Amino acid sequence: MANQSGRHFLQIPGPTPVPERILSAMSRQMLDHRGPTFGEFGLKLLADVKTIFKTHNPVIIYPSSGTGAWEAGLVNTLSPGDQVLIVETGQFAVLWRNMAERIGLKPEVIPTDWHSGADANKVEARLKKDKSHDIKAVCVVHNETSTGARSWIDEIRKAMDAAHHPALLMVDAVSSLGAMDLRHDEWGIDVTVAGSQKGLMLPPGLSFTAVSQKALAASKKAKLQRSYWNWDDMIAINAAGTFPYTPAIGLLFGLAEAIAMLHEEGLENVFARHERLAEATRRAVRGWGLDTWCRDPRSHSPAVTAVAMPESHNADAYRKLVLENFNMSLGTGLNKLAGKAFRIGHLGYTNELTILGALAGVEMGLELAGVPHEKGGVTAAMAYLSETVRPATAKAA
Amino acid sequence: MANQSGRHFLQIPGPTPVPERILSAMSRQMLDHRGPTFGEFGLKLLADVKTIFKTHNPVIIYPSSGTGAWEAGLVNTLSPGDQVLIVETGQFAVLWRNMAERIGLKPEVIPTDWHSGADANKVEARLKKDKSHDIKAVCVVHNETSTGARSWIDEIRKAMDAAHHPALLMVDAVSSLGAMDLRHDEWGIDVTVAGSQKGLMLPPGLSFTAVSQKALAASKKAKLQRSYWNWDDMIAINAAGTFPYTPAIGLLFGLAEAIAMLHEEGLENVFARHERLAEATRRAVRGWGLDTWCRDPRSHSPAVTAVAMPESHNADAYRKLVLENFNMSLGTGLNKLAGKAFRIGHLGYTNELTILGALAGVEMGLELAGVPHEKGGVTAAMAYLSETVRPATAKAA
Amino acid sequence: MANQSGRHFLQIPGPTPVPERILSAMSRQMLDHRGPTFGEFGLKLLADVKTIFKTHNPVIIYPSSGTGAWEAGLVNTLSPGDQVLIVETGQFAVLWRNMAERIGLKPEVIPTDWHSGADANKVEARLKKDKSHDIKAVCVVHNETSTGARSWIDEIRKAMDAAHHPALLMVDAVSSLGAMDLRHDEWGIDVTVAGSQKGLMLPPGLSFTAVSQKALAASKKAKLQRSYWNWDDMIAINAAGTFPYTPAIGLLFGLAEAIAMLHEEGLENVFARHERLAEATRRAVRGWGLDTWCRDPRSHSPAVTAVAMPESHNADAYRKLVLENFNMSLGTGLNKLAGKAFRIGHLGYTNELTILGALAGVEMGLELAGVPHEKGGVTAAMAYLSETVRPATAKAA
Amino acid sequence: MANQSGRHFLQIPGPTPVPERILSAMSRQMLDHRGPTFGEFGLKLLADVKTIFKTHNPVIIYPSSGTGAWEAGLVNTLSPGDQVLIVETGQFAVLWRNMAERIGLKPEVIPTDWHSGADANKVEARLKKDKSHDIKAVCVVHNETSTGARSWIDEIRKAMDAAHHPALLMVDAVSSLGAMDLRHDEWGIDVTVAGSQKGLMLPPGLSFTAVSQKALAASKKAKLQRSYWNWDDMIAINAAGTFPYTPAIGLLFGLAEAIAMLHEEGLENVFARHERLAEATRRAVRGWGLDTWCRDPRSHSPAVTAVAMPESHNADAYRKLVLENFNMSLGTGLNKLAGKAFRIGHLGYTNELTILGALAGVEMGLELAGVPHEKGGVTAAMAYLSETVRPATAKAA
Repeated sequence: MANQSGRHFLQIPGPTPVPERILSAMSRQMLDHRGPTFGEFGLKLLADVKTIFKTHNPVIIYPSSGTGAWEAGLVNTLSPGDQVLIVETGQFAVLWRNMAERIGLKPEVIPTDWHSGADANKVEARLKKDKSHDIKAVCVVHNETSTGARSWIDEIRKAMDAAHHPALLMVDAVSSLGAMDLRHDEWGIDVTVAGSQKGLMLPPGLSFTAVSQKALAASKKAKLQRSYWNWDDMIAINAAGTFPYTPAIGLLFGLAEAIAMLHEEGLENVFARHERLAEATRRAVRGWGLDTWCRDPRSHSPAVTAVAMPESHNADAYRKLVLENFNMSLGTGLNKLAGKAFRIGHLGYTNELTILGALAGVEMGLELAGVPHEKGGVTAAMAYLSETVRPATAKAA
Repeated sequence: MANQSGRHFLQIPGPTPVPERILSAMSRQMLDHRGPTFGEFGLKLLADVKTIFKTHNPVIIYPSSGTGAWEAGLVNTLSPGDQVLIVETGQFAVLWRNMAERIGLKPEVIPTDWHSGADANKVEARLKKDKSHDIKAVCVVHNETSTGARSWIDEIRKAMDAAHHPALLMVDAVSSLGAMDLRHDEWGIDVTVAGSQKGLMLPPGLSFTAVSQKALAASKKAKLQRSYWNWDDMIAINAAGTFPYTPAIGLLFGLAEAIAMLHEEGLENVFARHERLAEATRRAVRGWGLDTWCRDPRSHSPAVTAVAMPESHNADAYRKLVLENFNMSLGTGLNKLAGKAFRIGHLGYTNELTILGALAGVEMGLELAGVPHEKGGVTAAMAYLSETVRPATAKAA
Repeated sequence: MANQSGRHFLQIPGPTPVPERILSAMSRQMLDHRGPTFGEFGLKLLADVKTIFKTHNPVIIYPSSGTGAWEAGLVNTLSPGDQVLIVETGQFAVLWRNMAERIGLKPEVIPTDWHSGADANKVEARLKKDKSHDIKAVCVVHNETSTGARSWIDEIRKAMDAAHHPALLMVDAVSSLGAMDLRHDEWGIDVTVAGSQKGLMLPPGLSFTAVSQKALAASKKAKLQRSYWNWDDMIAINAAGTFPYTPAIGLLFGLAEAIAMLHEEGLENVFARHERLAEATRRAVRGWGLDTWCRDPRSHSPAVTAVAMPESHNADAYRKLVLENFNMSLGTGLNKLAGKAFRIGHLGYTNELTILGALAGVEMGLELAGVPHEKGGVTAAMAYLSETVRPATAKAA
Repeated sequence: MANQSGRHFLQIPGPTPVPERILSAMSRQMLDHRGPTFGEFGLKLLADVKTIFKTHNPVIIYPSSGTGAWEAGLVNTLSPGDQVLIVETGQFAVLWRNMAERIGLKPEVIPTDWHSGADANKVEARLKKDKSHDIKAVCVVHNETSTGARSWIDEIRKAMDAAHHPALLMVDAVSSLGAMDLRHDEWGIDVTVAGSQKGLMLPPGLSFTAVSQKALAASKKAKLQRSYWNWDDMIAINAAGTFPYTPAIGLLFGLAEAIAMLHEEGLENVFARHERLAEATRRAVRGWGLDTWCRDPRSHSPAVTAVAMPESHNADAYRKLVLENFNMSLGTGLNKLAGKAFRIGHLGYTNELTILGALAGVEMGLELAGVPHEKGGVTAAMAYLSETVRPATAKAA
């Protein structure tokens, strides 16, 4: 029988552990979603959620998975046969592409080697060739959860501007929101897509589209079939703090608490924490003599690290062994990475000791599985983390 | 300031109060939605949920509101321009119709006076005229939440059979599932649409489509654009107890508990309880000398009762007064009923004393608002409920 | 099988229903009870709890039932063989007397007919006879939970003053705190004893002694054996917000929330609410043609009403029938009231519609049990409650 | 500002982290503590709790801290002036001694160097000298929480038998129950004292005395003042599953869940887990070149390890630094250990990765505080834990 004593280490890149404080907030009893108490709550929540996206434009909240918000972004702004340009950074970009095709768009892919983020130069070059502006949207995954590679959205924006191209910029921030900086307005994003179960530390079940005025204008002409995902109804009725259909009230209670927690820590501190835990993780990987799947130093994700498994071993067999012996879930390798990599989530409600416990589990698992490696990963991570305690707190001690 | 002492009486027809037992079940920590523990949980849950729909066919669970499941039912089975026949029993039928139109179908409406359920004879007559079988689906709301009228789905089925018409039968069971008997297989329903926040006693955020083999066959040819709602992916991946995108894990934990509670009480007992509380409510309405909005004795809903407000008074002003003075939420009148009716929910986690407390609040509110009425509604309800205690329990006492 | 559908009506005079908000507050994770976070929490809590007792003196919080706080009050202030005067208002006075005897005190009882509260004149008369001041403490139950009779503590204080008697005044406020006004300092109480599971709306497990400077002075000379209950250790260590032994942290989290809730509603509003629900209950009893056990109009309890069962019927058989048919717990008759009375709790987290639901259950139970009674109890209660809606809120409506 | 991101590491030897499953169980609504549902629950619970103490005799459950159960053990069995023999293994033995003195007993102490457990030979020697059997009780702390030293109770039993001495054997199992084997009946213990907030994984607020027939016989003659702690009332009324005064219902719900969890894992597996995590901790301490406070290899505690701080440094300053930088609470040094040692709790709801995270925090803290130490503690602990994965689970992987 598997080892299930003590707290499970849920080190997948989402769903992430839900803080007890949020679980408690979600235990509140239901109320009338058309009544005045809910209306007040809704108005405040819809305003507060904008601070997380760094936008002054509407953020639309759906009862759905993040996948639904992808669909919402596309169907609200595009018409059948429209061309969209998607940078294939990994599996989630592939899925997005597949969805675009399925709903009647013409996706074109800028490939990558799956070992890095999006190359803004390639985007610029492609857009410059599109003299007739047939490309209606550029889709980039901010944090490619499958490979652990980030893309720099501000650079994509600059590339689009340099190409003087009017396409919409759509960003999948499902696993980046709340884990790394995202500036919807400043970066000129037209549609930011996000979900609840990653950096927001909530259970899955809510998704988000933050929009721009340009996206809203596009939505007036967009002809893809839509009803559930329709922005117009949402925005109109959100004005009163309510929703066109029954919202996922319990999760919204949790969202209010999550936003409060993020601001209590300070968004910049939250992002710095993610960067630091990610660097510690990478030092551990190097300490083991292993490679991260992401090979581009500028592209390392603050949210998740994919580790390449030596060819002699199967990553999923290793994950199974870790789960059964050390009560920890690691992320599986998806698509091209299947069996060849495992992923360590370090986003959301986590901290130094949690990630060190997790890395210790990875290191013991390597030993147990007979994977060729060097000792010293955890030691390297500890060294880094003790060298980089936040100055303010070190002073306070 | 409004009276907010003690437990709020949430007597709207959904979301309904969530039992503390379910709130606790949903407080369980997240886990790996691709791991073995979740897989086992998912397999059992997907099997168990069928018992609530009385089906052996797949029940597809979405992270979405019930509205989403409507859309799922339509887009999986139909093609652009397809005709659908919708019985307009009230506001939710109207909304369904509007959605059908919005996504490119051609809805035809069989009107009602909004004071009763669907008339099976009219359905039969219309279908018989459709010699060319242009009508691809017949859509009926099992329990019209806006008017408090039920439709007899078995009769609709018989009408369709009598007309030898091959259209799909789609049933909105959003506010009936778990409150009144629904026999997906026996009644030959092709798509049953449901939501979590009514008879299932869960927060909003999950929706369901139960399907038939005929509906699945139709889905192979259906051409409406679909991705998020696509049954194929769901059914294929559900075979392992998992989901094609991250499911709303917390709500699924709650669903498992809700199913357990329904079976502990016994589905037939649950339905009988709803019928009894509904009859008590109607006796109260009559006791006050008022009318239920539903005028057809065969159509009275076991889940919700809409009460017609005397013309001299506005139902929403009355509801506000009840909310502020007696800490109870009543359902607002929708569409044609706006200002003219209020609704008393008596579905889900409720019982004799809860409904009597609620009826007392309604009666005191009538007094306070100066609505012309007779005393004696609560007294009549009590008389009925004490005459009809369940024999087995009376014997045990 | 008993009827267990929907929410149980827990209408006993404690434990009372715990608001979900408090259940959530108690779901917070443990922390270091000697660390700085707990210290800050403890300091605030120990200050805030004084506002509920209306005292500036220490309030000592024990992990124990209310019974423990009785013992604490006695052993901290008295010495073996000391005489104490106890007004026997009912079963809880009897138990207190028994405890006094058991721990080596000499209790003397002023009897009552168990149908009223304490008679201050009798206390005064007895104390005046005690020229030698052998009586060291006068013990009065503020709200006699067993009979539903209150005693007026301010009058007892005046009686003691009139007799120029130096005895300590000890008050059992277990079922009155948070339900009726209690002014520890103003009324010159030396030891107020309370528990968590009544007006404070918490689970059982915490008890309280509020003390006076006079009681503290007495504790320096008191010779009864004590260790766990010792005030000195508590007060000394409470100064840092911590406790001499591990406190019941979870319940303390709940206590902080309960105090917040009481102040949000306003203590005076809380007391007025209890008075009003109690009067409604008594009107119902009269409406049934039955008698309250308490026969003195000045002594009716705002927290609980004991109802005398007609001699032909057994109150416990009736309670069983109500429980099994209507899913409501009523309080049993204790001691002299066994089988002859049942008790309706209307304290803590309750409101108009809850008590009306409960009264409806009582009325239907009388019918079902064949107890001779008149109809109209619930009607009378409704009439009173609708006549007396709080003016402010009626205006708002 | 202190680092408070992510989950706090509560590595004190109690209160220990409460599993979410237990927090959920405690969120259940209150019920009538004199009603049939509670009676059934109580009967089962009172039977089940015996399995944890490995006894067929009564286990009495108090709403109190563990300190209260100490008092209960003494006052139920002894009379004023009775001699008791206490082995002073550390601070908790001192406190027990102080309590004995305070309530009128004559405690005699067998000293230790505070670096080991009780020496059975010394107990035997002392008892043999007590020809007149003046010593009425021998008190031993099973796991001395202050020093991290265990005592072998079976050896104490043998020593008492060898001395043919009739004294009662009282064992403080507050921090051992649920963490290390305790056999109340087999070891001939007369009173086992325990609390809820350690190996039972509950919040503080419940305490326990398991008794023997001999202790019960002694209680008939014991003359120390007692009321709240009185066994007779408890045992008499527990026969119906109920309690003489209102029990701490919420914590009892949690206790039922805790017992279920311990049996699901298997008591022997639970104990083995504690031994293994303790050994890993000690290997880490040795790896750092530091000493455990406990110096006797046979006495190392499976529940807590006290680490001696090098003289140049203050253990509490170190603890503060660890708390503020790594969000972990370590146990303070008590009494003789104040400033000289810190304690690492590894009991209750913990596992390999949790303890490794904690040890990493200790190691980084040593670095940060400039405490002279060697690297390699965590590495040594990992090596041990990966060498000793449970064979069954390794095979399963």
